[in-house]
Amino acid sequence: MEKTSCLHFCFISCLVLFIIVGSWYRSSISSLPGYSLQIQKPIDHSAETPYHPLDPLTVKEINRVRTILSSYEPFSFTFPTIHTILLDEPDKVQVLKWRKGDPFPPRKAQVLALLNGQSHVLNVDLDSRRVTSHAINPSSGYPMLSMDDISAASKAPFSNAEFNKSIAARGLSSSELTCLTPSGGWFGPNEEGKRVVKVLCFSKQGTPNFYMRPIEGLVITVDLDTLEVLKFSDTGRDIPIPKSTDTDYRYTAQKKEPQMEPLNPISIEQPKGPSFRVEDGHTVKWANWVFHLKADHRAGLVISRVMVRDSENGELRDVMYKGFASEFFVPYMDLDESWYFKSYMDAGEFGLGMSALPLVPLNDCPRHSYYMDGIFATPDGNPFVQPNMICLFERYAGDISWRHSEGLLTDFQIREARPKVTLVARMAASVGNYDYILDWEFQTDGLINVKVGLSGMLMVKGSPYHQAPNQDAMSGPLISENLIGVVHDHFVTFHLDMDIDGVNNSFVNVNLVKERSLPGESPRKSYLKSKRKIAKTEKDAQIKLKLYDPSEFHMINPSKRSRLGNPTGYKIVPGGTAASLLDHDDPPQLRSAFTNNQIWVTPYNKTEQWAGGLLTYQSRGDDTLAVWSERDRSIENKDIVLWYTLGFHQIPCQEDFPIMPTVTSGFELKPVNFFESNPILRAAPAFEKDLPVCRPSASS
Amino acid sequence: MEKTSCLHFCFISCLVLFIIVGSWYRSSISSLPGYSLQIQKPIDHSAETPYHPLDPLTVKEINRVRTILSSYEPFSFTFPTIHTILLDEPDKVQVLKWRKGDPFPPRKAQVLALLNGQSHVLNVDLDSRRVTSHAINPSSGYPMLSMDDISAASKAPFSNAEFNKSIAARGLSSSELTCLTPSGGWFGPNEEGKRVVKVLCFSKQGTPNFYMRPIEGLVITVDLDTLEVLKFSDTGRDIPIPKSTDTDYRYTAQKKEPQMEPLNPISIEQPKGPSFRVEDGHTVKWANWVFHLKADHRAGLVISRVMVRDSENGELRDVMYKGFASEFFVPYMDLDESWYFKSYMDAGEFGLGMSALPLVPLNDCPRHSYYMDGIFATPDGNPFVQPNMICLFERYAGDISWRHSEGLLTDFQIREARPKVTLVARMAASVGNYDYILDWEFQTDGLINVKVGLSGMLMVKGSPYHQAPNQDAMSGPLISENLIGVVHDHFVTFHLDMDIDGVNNSFVNVNLVKERSLPGESPRKSYLKSKRKIAKTEKDAQIKLKLYDPSEFHMINPSKRSRLGNPTGYKIVPGGTAASLLDHDDPPQLRSAFTNNQIWVTPYNKTEQWAGGLLTYQSRGDDTLAVWSERDRSIENKDIVLWYTLGFHQIPCQEDFPIMPTVTSGFELKPVNFFESNPILRAAPAFEKDLPVCRPSASS
Repeated sequence: MEKTSCLHFCFISCLVLFIIVGSWYRSSISSLPGYSLQIQKPIDHSAETPYHPLDPLTVKEINRVRTILSSYEPFSFTFPTIHTILLDEPDKVQVLKWRKGDPFPPRKAQVLALLNGQSHVLNVDLDSRRVTSHAINPSSGYPMLSMDDISAASKAPFSNAEFNKSIAARGLSSSELTCLTPSGGWFGPNEEGKRVVKVLCFSKQGTPNFYMRPIEGLVITVDLDTLEVLKFSDTGRDIPIPKSTDTDYRYTAQKKEPQMEPLNPISIEQPKGPSFRVEDGHTVKWANWVFHLKADHRAGLVISRVMVRDSENGELRDVMYKGFASEFFVPYMDLDESWYFKSYMDAGEFGLGMSALPLVPLNDCPRHSYYMDGIFATPDGNPFVQPNMICLFERYAGDISWRHSEGLLTDFQIREARPKVTLVARMAASVGNYDYILDWEFQTDGLINVKVGLSGMLMVKGSPYHQAPNQDAMSGPLISENLIGVVHDHFVTFHLDMDIDGVNNSFVNVNLVKERSLPGESPRKSYLKSKRKIAKTEKDAQIKLKLYDPSEFHMINPSKRSRLGNPTGYKIVPGGTAASLLDHDDPPQLRSAFTNNQIWVTPYNKTEQWAGGLLTYQSRGDDTLAVWSERDRSIENKDIVLWYTLGFHQIPCQEDFPIMPTVTSGFELKPVNFFESNPILRAAPAFEKDLPVCRPSASS
Repeated sequence: MEKTSCLHFCFISCLVLFIIVGSWYRSSISSLPGYSLQIQKPIDHSAETPYHPLDPLTVKEINRVRTILSSYEPFSFTFPTIHTILLDEPDKVQVLKWRKGDPFPPRKAQVLALLNGQSHVLNVDLDSRRVTSHAINPSSGYPMLSMDDISAASKAPFSNAEFNKSIAARGLSSSELTCLTPSGGWFGPNEEGKRVVKVLCFSKQGTPNFYMRPIEGLVITVDLDTLEVLKFSDTGRDIPIPKSTDTDYRYTAQKKEPQMEPLNPISIEQPKGPSFRVEDGHTVKWANWVFHLKADHRAGLVISRVMVRDSENGELRDVMYKGFASEFFVPYMDLDESWYFKSYMDAGEFGLGMSALPLVPLNDCPRHSYYMDGIFATPDGNPFVQPNMICLFERYAGDISWRHSEGLLTDFQIREARPKVTLVARMAASVGNYDYILDWEFQTDGLINVKVGLSGMLMVKGSPYHQAPNQDAMSGPLISENLIGVVHDHFVTFHLDMDIDGVNNSFVNVNLVKERSLPGESPRKSYLKSKRKIAKTEKDAQIKLKLYDPSEFHMINPSKRSRLGNPTGYKIVPGGTAASLLDHDDPPQLRSAFTNNQIWVTPYNKTEQWAGGLLTYQSRGDDTLAVWSERDRSIENKDIVLWYTLGFHQIPCQEDFPIMPTVTSGFELKPVNFFESNPILRAAPAFEKDLPVCRPSASS
């Protein structure tokens, strides 16, 4: 009987899966006029099996996890709400040993679930079909919101009399409202012991861009488990709802032509196809790179087992075991009753993968892109497919890999230049109003360029003003009539488990120090000297960047040296380096204390993946990178993880209305004495004879 | 008789011109196998006339300048050596008033010349055929080196007995040597009153990459005018010349295949052609942008009269009157007798335009690029053409202009994204060993992205070591056997004459200040507040960037406000922000004191164009941006110029040998409340039906 019910269960869940997949595809792509797919055939995920120890859980495996949990004694009475089912990756040593064809290390899942208001963290062994560990409330937070949480909470206000009175008083009908559920953060004991969310509503009348029409000052605090309205607050009755004029950003809604000369069609073309291969679903091979790429419910995109081919002997060499955006921190700078709590941790509270709708071919990613799906779990533990959430493409932007010319000063006539072609893995998430674009770009010279783009809609505040009378009194500039773009920050903290030529690495601060020359030593009075300092413990590697006390930051393998005796390494080259300036005792900063420094280094610990803690929602800051690092563990010649926080300060402007032009920043991971010499010295130039022959399409 | 001689002169000079052009073309492009031109037909510059008041001097005009100078009384005895003949741009007010079809403001030239060891700065009126001003030694420096200077000085050591003895002692023959002429800088009274240069030699035996084979410690100080050897110094007899193994970077010299899978052909394709037009030789029109683009002997590339179309009413609006890289400062960090003086000012000492050999089609610039020539003067005052020194192309890199998707949280199903297509104006200069790539990239959202790429060869130092025994004792890491990559900096200081909606602008420091909330005011304890401060005088705008005291920096038009009351403006978004750490009394830093801050603002003054002074060679720092700014002039609501210094610290590594992979950084000029709303809201997405149909070429 148990078997029958299991089969029945599987049948139902597969059905659910295909319905979901089908509807996604229909809604996401084929209904958009003018887009022709040009992407590979959708994969039938129901039949998939893993090919690599790091492959995400398959549809079958997620079904099996649900089956195991269904028959797990503590859940026999009530099945918990599933917030995440993720591969519990095998120990690093097992993964590093594994070769294609070897038997797999045991497949395991980590499950974050909620039952009776308590957080459950379970580990499930898929082979032995057993729950191998089970912790209840191991730290202060809760798992990320589920789709059911969001859906239920956003409906909760409508059964509240005060709320209905308030919207009626504004002349609004409930049918024109869309309510969102920004997390409430955590602000002391009043908000403990239960999951709470703040619900905010917007008017979608006349526009799908309801974000630009906030019902200002109306905040409903909801108990996520009972759906009870805990608190009703309305401080904005005198603030009009901004008009919907020109807020719709959809192409089909545009009535006027833009004020610019039209652009001729332009495209990155590869008539012989792209040069990369995706083997066994997740292993990417391109030029001198091999890596594992997968979608992740929380981080969005995870790059693992990154190896680059040595330019001398052709050997594949380890560079990075795992890299991903571990947490996002987005504090807004407004103390009002309806704003103070707005400080998001987008990965841990909402999930980047969860928020990643299908990429738009030709517009999110160029032609000849390869698309990859994500497979996640619904709140009832069924698998579902997030289709086309990652794209992979070769990029040629007209840039130059290296160049030199001679002929002016010497008798050599030389004109040498090499075009730069790179490989990009991209995902984009719409976390509510905001869009994040994450790019991992691989260069043939060994450099990895990680970029974060910000687009989508600002979180805006209603204002009584049409014009900006006294900007100093407001929490941001007026960006449209009755709309303030509130000043805020974005921090993206990356987990970079660098393994340069093996697991044991050291972190070196190569400090550039200004020295004074001795009297009579030289006509020069000062110079810079680089001084290397190896970090012994975690506190040595808590780094705040300083323009006037600059350093390079190297991850080196102290046991592997180049032929010249230099340790092989990679350096992190910081890009946009806005720092969080909030006080350390401010609750949002306490929870996101991983932004207290721009760089941290911790010893590898499989449980320390999420900079804001495993359970982030309503967390109190007891399980962050900053807390781990305070243990001041030894990090010299150890398996260590580098953390880097990319920061953006945002003072909005009118150009950001009604949708923001993408703002991009990033950082680089760059080989430093890793190769014996320039690895692309022998790269070929582009020749006219090799380039495609193109004609305009008949319809253009 | 005067007329006949002039005609004769013209004939000769035209002949010289065509010979030069012809030989350039042959040497630069057609001799490289496999490159097919695909670029527009060379222009017959001999017939050109100017079309715009800012157009560079034509061949005919340079000839006329020479003719005027020939009959100028003070030069009747000896014709001076010409170092620069440049357009003396008309007053801004005249240029702004000028419309196509209007008569031209008088065409004038500025001439920098040398006669009897003295610097002459002349202004010549081409219409009245008169020298209108003439200053001798107006400041401490000399004009940039001429080709004749470089050529003569690099030969001078060979007639010096000590030098010949020294190279013979090393077992070298003079035929295998190539000598370069790095400027000597200025280090006190000993080096005044005459033009001096330090000559360094390299062995080119076995490689055209002689830069990697320095004859270390051998420095010959030469009087540039008498060509006398002033000083001979040899401190490196025990230092071997590094081997030439694997130093040759030419494609034809590569014997092995690179250790990577080959890449399929890839190209930016536009079968209907690019969308930009170049009118009258120098006026570029693309999408919503119009600007004037020209080659410059010193700055390399100058962008002027930059206007963008208003997204609401279609009006062309002023953004920037003139933008260019004003000076480069490259101090090396080695006190040795043969190194202390190595601190270059590449624009003022060598000239970026002067050093710009023709760009390599398909490799320096993508297909469908448009190429522009530079017209400069030879030391005898004849015009010569620097062909294909600028390229202009449309760039599509697979990036996203803006995006948003809906469907998870709400009942809207939206997938909107817009591809980012930009226009790039590029030049590349090989200033001796080093290559600079300068890009001005224009986006349809109004953003201008300025990028500097560094490639080419490092300036390296010979070393007795094969392995790195004690890196701390050296001035940089060992990057190959017997070769040290000396630590150095690169600073590029841009002159950005922003004219937002007219000439009178103000500079605003929008400071983000952390404030503490009052007790009981909010559950939040801290927040950021933006505080605007308008700079009254120059000293208010001497800015050192601070990570923990961040600001935005706006150039606004205080008399022009958006419909919401925000002043229209552009902000500068700093990128790579290495600061110069040298002491202010160190001679190189004194001469390049323009790097003492990252940002400066000065009132517009036609004579304040060159951050290191008009006469830079051997200058003593008496005519720099830092000196001008100390006058602390009023800059509020005035015609003002923004200066920004982009910085790079370089600690070389083995990957930089024998040629450096390009390192790129840049900054942005970004509209802030300039447009009423996002100017590309109505931009169209890309549709498959419009994209080209391509096939591999038959030969690929």
